[in-house]
Amino acid sequence: MKIIHYSVAESTQFNDSEVVKGVTGRVVIGKDDDAPNFCMRFFELSEGGYSPCHAHDWEHEILIHSGKGEVLRDGKWVPVSAGYAVFIPGNEEHQIRNAGQDPLVFACVIPSGPPEL
Amino acid sequence: MKIIHYSVAESTQFNDSEVVKGVTGRVVIGKDDDAPNFCMRFFELSEGGYSPCHAHDWEHEILIHSGKGEVLRDGKWVPVSAGYAVFIPGNEEHQIRNAGQDPLVFACVIPSGPPEL
Repeated sequence: MKIIHYSVAESTQFNDSEVVKGVTGRVVIGKDDDAPNFCMRFFELSEGGYSPCHAHDWEHEILIHSGKGEVLRDGKWVPVSAGYAVFIPGNEEHQIRNAGQDPLVFACVIPSGPPEL
Repeated sequence: MKIIHYSVAESTQFNDSEVVKGVTGRVVIGKDDDAPNFCMRFFELSEGGYSPCHAHDWEHEILIHSGKGEVLRDGKWVPVSAGYAVFIPGNEEHQIRNAGQDPLVFACVIPSGPPEL
């Protein structure tokens, strides 16, 4: 059994001008733990930060941990905050952005197979 | 895309004297949403509440959302609070209990196949 605070997992920064901004990603539970079916990542989006607007053939199951954000759904931004869950089916376009001053922190679970981060 | 606050999902109470106490469970993302690979449930443990001490052949990936709790690992209680992730491999005995006054709230992801709740 692994018990870890997400903040101590190794982090990777994502900043690519127009595509992604102010994103810190961490694999918290994944293949290195012999997790057989799915992988839990954590993301922190700093003030003004956003994830890429993209689609891929695997799903996301997201849990908003803290902060205030917005999720792009069918061309409209939907507000989310702590305790919201978001299910993004495979091949559906999506993007998440921070809509507050504090970091937006969320867990995002994906199936095993795609890149973990 | 489904966007839902966990608290509005249908809830089920679990109270079985010695086995489980003060547990409210909710399926937030699952087969009814056509989630293909894994299922996100939320649990609230009231003050003094605990989940069953048991083992099964599927894994858990847990995220502590709020409150203070303890996780039974190898016969010892390990403290957890908001932002802790717990990976419980299949067939490993486990139990979670509330160690505070406020509800202990956590998400628990399981693979598709076993009962969702």
